[in-house]
Amino acid sequence: MTIKITGTGSYIPDTIEKNERFHNHEFLNTDGSVINAPNEVIVEKFKAITGISERRYAKKHHTSSDLGFFAAEKAIKDANIDPETLDYIIVAHNFGDVKHNTIQADIIPSLATRIKHSLRIKNPKCIAYDILFGCPGWVEGVIQAQAFIKAGMAKRCLVIGTETLSRVVDKHDRDSMIFSDGAGATIVEATNEEGGILAHESASFTYDEAYYLYFGNSNNPDLDKDTRYIKMDGRKIYEFALLNVPKAMKACLDKSGTDISEVKKIFIHQANEKMDEAILKRFYRLYRTDIPENVMPMSIQKLGNSSVATVPTLFDLVKNNQLENHNINKGDVVIFASVGAGMHINAIVYKY
Amino acid sequence: MTIKITGTGSYIPDTIEKNERFHNHEFLNTDGSVINAPNEVIVEKFKAITGISERRYAKKHHTSSDLGFFAAEKAIKDANIDPETLDYIIVAHNFGDVKHNTIQADIIPSLATRIKHSLRIKNPKCIAYDILFGCPGWVEGVIQAQAFIKAGMAKRCLVIGTETLSRVVDKHDRDSMIFSDGAGATIVEATNEEGGILAHESASFTYDEAYYLYFGNSNNPDLDKDTRYIKMDGRKIYEFALLNVPKAMKACLDKSGTDISEVKKIFIHQANEKMDEAILKRFYRLYRTDIPENVMPMSIQKLGNSSVATVPTLFDLVKNNQLENHNINKGDVVIFASVGAGMHINAIVYKY
Repeated sequence: MTIKITGTGSYIPDTIEKNERFHNHEFLNTDGSVINAPNEVIVEKFKAITGISERRYAKKHHTSSDLGFFAAEKAIKDANIDPETLDYIIVAHNFGDVKHNTIQADIIPSLATRIKHSLRIKNPKCIAYDILFGCPGWVEGVIQAQAFIKAGMAKRCLVIGTETLSRVVDKHDRDSMIFSDGAGATIVEATNEEGGILAHESASFTYDEAYYLYFGNSNNPDLDKDTRYIKMDGRKIYEFALLNVPKAMKACLDKSGTDISEVKKIFIHQANEKMDEAILKRFYRLYRTDIPENVMPMSIQKLGNSSVATVPTLFDLVKNNQLENHNINKGDVVIFASVGAGMHINAIVYKY
Repeated sequence: MTIKITGTGSYIPDTIEKNERFHNHEFLNTDGSVINAPNEVIVEKFKAITGISERRYAKKHHTSSDLGFFAAEKAIKDANIDPETLDYIIVAHNFGDVKHNTIQADIIPSLATRIKHSLRIKNPKCIAYDILFGCPGWVEGVIQAQAFIKAGMAKRCLVIGTETLSRVVDKHDRDSMIFSDGAGATIVEATNEEGGILAHESASFTYDEAYYLYFGNSNNPDLDKDTRYIKMDGRKIYEFALLNVPKAMKACLDKSGTDISEVKKIFIHQANEKMDEAILKRFYRLYRTDIPENVMPMSIQKLGNSSVATVPTLFDLVKNNQLENHNINKGDVVIFASVGAGMHINAIVYKY
C-alpha cells in the first residue's frame, strides 16, 4: 500500500490587491510613531524583501469555509471520486470564518463541518474536523490523514487549507501587505500504485518561539485595545526558519532514503521570497551541492502569503502547468515544507 | 500492545455561579419578546430539565489555555511521566482563548502551543495541535492519539479538553445558564498491560444538522449585530441525540466484543441531565436489559456543561473517588460517549 495525493484543487480569489493600493495607508511603527519615509518607499522596500507585488482578497460575502469548499469541489472532481466515500475531511486554518468588516472568528461549528455540509455529503462515517497548526496546517493534515490510513481507520481523506488573512490584518502595520486569502485542497488515499508519501517530519518549537506569531493590538494606539490582529516578529521568524527549516527538510529527505539529486521540486510555504530563497540555499549547502534550476516554484509574487493555502495551491498550479518553467512528471520526487505560528515546522517527501 | 489512559487531571474553577445569580437577568425569546414568567420560574424550569443548580466560571484573568495547562500538569503528575517524553499534545476546544469581557477568540498561536509553552517542554518532537470537533473533541482527541500510536508515529500523548463557555454566552438567552468553564486532561499511551481502548466509534452528521449549534446574535435585538454568541436549537439537538447516540454507543460496544452486562460505567458528555438519562434508557433498551444502578456518574448538577471538558473531568473525579456512590476498579469496562456541535458523535469502549 502507498499513500498518494490523487486529486488537487485550489481557489484563488479574483480580487487582486496591488501594492499601489497601500500608498494611502497610514503605516506606523510598533510604538505608534510615524514611519519616516513616503509610502511609495515603504512599499518598494517591502516588495524587495518579500517579493510580493500583489495579493488576493476574498469577495466580501465569502468566508474561509466558502473558499475551502470551492477548492474541495475541484479536488474531488480532479480525483474523480464519489465524495460519499471520504472517510475524513480535515481542514487547516488559523482564524476560522471572519465575516468582512467584523472582528469575531466564527469556529462553531468547525469549518470542516461547514464544508462537508456544503458538499452535501450524507455519510455520517465521514469524520469532519479542524486542525489548528499555524501555516503548516495543511501539511500536518496530510500527515494526520497518513496516520489514519496507516492505522486502518481510513482509506480516503480530503485535506484542505483555507484562510482569509485579509480579515485579520492591522492596516497600520506594514506586515499587513504580506497577507492574502485563498484555499487549497487535496484527496489523500491508500493506493496500489508506486510512490506516494515516502517520509514525513514534524516539529513544534514552543519553548522560546510560541509567541513569534500572535494576536496583538494595532500599531495605532488610538484604536480599541480589545481588538486584535495577526502580528509577527518578522526578524525572529526569519532567523528561526533559516536555522531550522533546512535541517527538518534534510532529516525528512534522509529518512526517505532518497538522494538529493532526485529531488525535482520543493513546494515551500510562501511566506517571504527572500526567506524561502535563503532556506533553499542553506538546504542544498547541507548536501554540499548546487541548487538545480527551477527546483522551487514560487507564487508569492502574485498571490501573497495565504498561510495554510500556499503549499496545496502551489502544488495544484504546477500540476496543472499554470506556473511558467514548472511541471511535474510521474515518478518525480518532491518535497512539501512549511513553517509558521507555533512555531511549527513540517515536511513531506513525496514521489509523484 | 494496548493503548491506555495512564494519567488524568482536571481543573474545576473555584468560582461557583448558582442559579440564583440569574434571577436578575433579562431573559428574552429568540424573537426578542419578553418571556411571560418571573425569572424564579424560568430558572426552576431550567433546573428541572437540565439538572443544573450551579456551574463554574474561570477567574477573570484566566483563559481556556490556562485551564488546560492546569489540568495537564495534574495528568502528567498522575501518570508520573517526564513531559519531555510526550509525542503529541492534542487540545480540543471550541472558542479558543477569549479574554474576560472581550468578544474576540484568540487562536493564534494554537492553545496546544500555549499549553506546551507553559509546561516548559523543550522537545520539538512533541507535536502540539488543536482539534475543533464540538463537545466530542476530547473523545476524538483520544481517538486521534490512538491512530498515531497504531501508525507507529507516537507512544505517548497528552489529550486535553478545555473551554470557557461563560465568555461566549448571550445573557438574554436562557441557554446561557447551561454553560460552564473547565478543563480535563489525560495521558494516553502504548502499554504492555491488559485492557485499554477496545473499540471506538465516530460520526459527523452535517447534512441537516451542521447548524444545530452555531454562532448567532443575542436575543436582544438592540445589541450589536456583529457580536455573536453560542446558540443552539435545543429541541432538535435533544431529538438528534436521543436517536443517534444510543446507536453509536451500541455499535461501539458490539465492535469491542464486550457484553452489555460487563459495562461498569458510562461517562457521557454532561449536556443536559434529562437528555443523558433518556439516552441511557434507550441504550439499555437496545439490549433489552435493565439499567444497572449507578452506571452513569453525573456532574452536571454542580459543574454545568463545560463542553469538551466534561468527559475527562468526570472520569478524573470517579477515578479519584470524588463522586459519591461511584468508583472504578482495574478490569472494569467503561464507555466514554459524547455528542455536540457539528453534529458529531463518538464513543470509546475502554477497559480500565
